[in-house]
Amino acid sequence: MEKKVGIYDLIIIGAGAAGCSAAIYATRYSLKTLLIGGHMPGGLITEALEVENYPGYLSISGALLANKFLEQAKSLGAEFVADIVDRSYRSNRTHIVETLAGEVYEARALILAVGTEHRKLNVPGEKEFEGKGVSYCATCDGPLFKGKVVAVIGGGNSAVEGAQDVAAHASKVYLIYRSELKAASLYIENMRGNKKIVEVPGTNITKIGGDKSVQYVLLDRLFDGGRKLAVGGVFVEIGYIPNNTLAKSLGCDLTPYGYVKVNAAMESSVSGVFCAGDLSDASNQLHQQVTSAAEGAIAAQGVFRYLRGLKTVVES
Amino acid sequence: MEKKVGIYDLIIIGAGAAGCSAAIYATRYSLKTLLIGGHMPGGLITEALEVENYPGYLSISGALLANKFLEQAKSLGAEFVADIVDRSYRSNRTHIVETLAGEVYEARALILAVGTEHRKLNVPGEKEFEGKGVSYCATCDGPLFKGKVVAVIGGGNSAVEGAQDVAAHASKVYLIYRSELKAASLYIENMRGNKKIVEVPGTNITKIGGDKSVQYVLLDRLFDGGRKLAVGGVFVEIGYIPNNTLAKSLGCDLTPYGYVKVNAAMESSVSGVFCAGDLSDASNQLHQQVTSAAEGAIAAQGVFRYLRGLKTVVES
Repeated sequence: MEKKVGIYDLIIIGAGAAGCSAAIYATRYSLKTLLIGGHMPGGLITEALEVENYPGYLSISGALLANKFLEQAKSLGAEFVADIVDRSYRSNRTHIVETLAGEVYEARALILAVGTEHRKLNVPGEKEFEGKGVSYCATCDGPLFKGKVVAVIGGGNSAVEGAQDVAAHASKVYLIYRSELKAASLYIENMRGNKKIVEVPGTNITKIGGDKSVQYVLLDRLFDGGRKLAVGGVFVEIGYIPNNTLAKSLGCDLTPYGYVKVNAAMESSVSGVFCAGDLSDASNQLHQQVTSAAEGAIAAQGVFRYLRGLKTVVES
Repeated sequence: MEKKVGIYDLIIIGAGAAGCSAAIYATRYSLKTLLIGGHMPGGLITEALEVENYPGYLSISGALLANKFLEQAKSLGAEFVADIVDRSYRSNRTHIVETLAGEVYEARALILAVGTEHRKLNVPGEKEFEGKGVSYCATCDGPLFKGKVVAVIGGGNSAVEGAQDVAAHASKVYLIYRSELKAASLYIENMRGNKKIVEVPGTNITKIGGDKSVQYVLLDRLFDGGRKLAVGGVFVEIGYIPNNTLAKSLGCDLTPYGYVKVNAAMESSVSGVFCAGDLSDASNQLHQQVTSAAEGAIAAQGVFRYLRGLKTVVES
């Protein structure tokens, strides 16, 4: 069932901004490069309807930007497969990557660029109603809730901005958060100018309920005279968790929050394994397309130096 | 003569990829931002006829990319002035910036993003013939040497790639380098396939000579039977040096090579002074548009946190 497909200099796992940029730079270094991007090539940015802070584009959809990254990597010579990596391990001096499609690839170095995923609330009803009123992307799914009353959960940038996005469609938006708003002041000011949005501070959700789809959420304190809030949708916007399963199995050192520790060359604690993008602990945890792309470029340079036997971290 | 023009949250000095990206992100954080870009807004990239490794653009001229960065920063609300910063110093709790045009600006934080400049050979004739056959940008000035025999000095990426660019116009190109080629293998392979290019390894230039314009270079060893090589142009492509005069005067710690030492938030050793782009020691010394842009974004976040009294380096 399994077959071997030659030895690559580099396999990049994940085809978002970090992975594609790593591929773009790796081809510049003449590295024989395989880019594996599965369920969601492009990563979380594909959810964004409008990106205004990627330098070089005044405004572009996340999906289109992701597509440009991938096409550029391919056109410069990186091989691309749409497949999911099942496991990876070391075999003598190379790294083996096995995919769900049953392929086995081998490379002299790896770049992990599989990013983060949406953090879950972990309350009763959340899983049951996912896709039936529970969403993790206000920006993407907001238009599906036209004229409805909805709840957005969270106090960070994505929650506050998400509440604004949803309010363009919904009739009323409850913004429910635990302690205080942690979003950038610009987002908060804009949100507070929107009369459709009602803030529910100092409050947790304890249950999401309904029949065939979401009909209410239960709160852990009284609000407006009760603990039950009638809503037709719940947007969970409470941040992200790193996709570190593969990194863990390879033995990479992680930070307390689960990000892959890297040095200045984006090299993990495991020889020949590099990491770039939201999964790494670099860029001072500013998770943006431009920081991911930069980390990918730096990782590719690191791999190039590693394969040539040079010190990966450059003296300055 | 001097006049004060209000207090900014942030003054960014330098309007290349780092400075513009910092401005783009600073406006997102609602910071009152002034971007000062002088002689060469856009920086060294404006010399590049074709950029193929900025993620998001298959191919774009350096000048156009630089222009897109600046327009985006302006359209998002950053104030821009085309002026040269003469000096900068601390005054109580703010930073004062004085320009050659006689303006005096004041800000609660600074981002230095003035990059690097071309390294000089420092041999007789170099200064005398600058613009009369001596150029520091093969890519920009190559077309001016149509049908001529020229020399390109250096063994790194810019020299090897530059030799290729010049060979498209010149009749013959001597690529003169000291020890060995340090360029990426792809560049070297391409260059060696070009019959117009003759490598002169293990050689230094000791003089550039001529009458009204360059006519020859002197070598420190025999080549092809002599030490004098008849050329109509000399392209000096031996790397870059950091523009650290301002950083020095502000008291920022520098690396042995003269780059500004920064922490994960792109903060220098001086409180309230940040640095981004080629001038910093970040990004493992990979000086690219995408790494500069990322550093600018991270610096803006750092300034935002600094002004709010938060720890600039984020825990991960």
